[in-house]
Amino acid sequence: MTTSQLTEQIHLKKSFLCIGLDVDIDKIPKHLLKEEDPIFAFNKAIIDATHQLVVAYKPNLAFYEAQGIKGFQALKKTIDYLNENHPEIFTIADAKRGDIGNTSGMYAKAFFEDLNFDSVTVAPYMGKDSVEPFLAYENKHTILLALTSNEGAFDFQTQSFDGEELYKKVIKTSKDWNNGQNLMYVVGATKAEHLREIRHLIPESFLLVPGVGAQGGSLEEVCKFGMNRKVGLLVNASRAVIYASEDENFAEAAATEAKKLQQEMASYL
Amino acid sequence: MTTSQLTEQIHLKKSFLCIGLDVDIDKIPKHLLKEEDPIFAFNKAIIDATHQLVVAYKPNLAFYEAQGIKGFQALKKTIDYLNENHPEIFTIADAKRGDIGNTSGMYAKAFFEDLNFDSVTVAPYMGKDSVEPFLAYENKHTILLALTSNEGAFDFQTQSFDGEELYKKVIKTSKDWNNGQNLMYVVGATKAEHLREIRHLIPESFLLVPGVGAQGGSLEEVCKFGMNRKVGLLVNASRAVIYASEDENFAEAAATEAKKLQQEMASYL
Repeated sequence: MTTSQLTEQIHLKKSFLCIGLDVDIDKIPKHLLKEEDPIFAFNKAIIDATHQLVVAYKPNLAFYEAQGIKGFQALKKTIDYLNENHPEIFTIADAKRGDIGNTSGMYAKAFFEDLNFDSVTVAPYMGKDSVEPFLAYENKHTILLALTSNEGAFDFQTQSFDGEELYKKVIKTSKDWNNGQNLMYVVGATKAEHLREIRHLIPESFLLVPGVGAQGGSLEEVCKFGMNRKVGLLVNASRAVIYASEDENFAEAAATEAKKLQQEMASYL
Repeated sequence: MTTSQLTEQIHLKKSFLCIGLDVDIDKIPKHLLKEEDPIFAFNKAIIDATHQLVVAYKPNLAFYEAQGIKGFQALKKTIDYLNENHPEIFTIADAKRGDIGNTSGMYAKAFFEDLNFDSVTVAPYMGKDSVEPFLAYENKHTILLALTSNEGAFDFQTQSFDGEELYKKVIKTSKDWNNGQNLMYVVGATKAEHLREIRHLIPESFLLVPGVGAQGGSLEEVCKFGMNRKVGLLVNASRAVIYASEDENFAEAAATEAKKLQQEMASYL
């Protein structure tokens, strides 16, 4: 999927919403536990109820890995279901991987070839050769952590680095890597005041913005400071949408929450 | 497993060797491909031939994830085989994970509870709350990336951070996290000249040192600058040991390479 196709979808659906499929077996409605694959059943119901309101889904790998082989199978079924039924939807493996080049190449194979995600989140700490194996894939997308939504972002990311914050150094340096112009970046909604400066550094890049909803970020501020002339935003909500209800109507409740976010988004487009 | 037990094993075996089980299906001897689970068959043969020479094994997750469900099953069989037959051997999930607290907790569950590894490698970019969920486990060990063995380490890790390199800032800051005194650190053998300064900052901590062998690091220099009064080192070799031969005698060839390293280690103890 190309970024132009993603932008088309955003305008078509009047939405730049991404739903985080961070599925915790302890939090899904109890009636699903009798299903053969409760996590996939949950995801399928959420996708069926929300796919017209969103342009992206983002499973976080940790939630699937915590379920062992069953979790891996649920993830595989989820991405296959999306690719077969909704190829127009952008898929993000939120994996935050990164290793020496030889090894990052293995992760790239896992996410881009075997699972066939459109994109993967990658951590920058190990530098250029840990990210370039992901960037080598055409029409696949590497989403680099820049400024994350958690408290710990202040430990290193916002610390000054010879007069410049580390997250800015990461953004500037990464633009020069092979195919670096294709990078997208993670910028937390909880750090919306930083978005203006980030937009100055990367006016054209897509930003994946987590932290709206359960983590307290404001959609209005994200749009005010983060939107570019092609929109250039994917705003993620996870818990606030997928756990809107614990009852049998959980998927409709999720769609209601997603619809609220989509309508607010439409007002900013 | 406690660090005291690990130190006892080091003295008993006169070895601080860790073998990286970074198993690429395209590189293992061809005769194994007819086995039901070629990757596990390879690992089992390597473990059976080398377990008296090493104190740790370190599967890198990327190589298993690149094989999908079969890879996950091979990993599970490998860690179960180690825990059942060699509980005295320290096991490292080389996963380089790290996410917001809620999510890092899921990764900690995956590696410490479900798979029952003794330790996991973790990336520091997202700060305190991304690492503390791992540190909350008693007698499990969190190995934080400090200064990695690849070229990309020079992109950010060695850059100056208000007069101090980022990797030093990571080490100093992380010591103050909850249970931070239990952290181990990854320090690449290819950066041996930095080990003296690192030892000054963390005289007591275990260091996991990759990059000896295929990546060109020198064991002598690592020991000269990195060893403390309790040894405090785990030196990893992967490709140079496990791919020593492509023939049916691959396990014996791996043991021969491991023995050379162990004997050199014994001379420094």
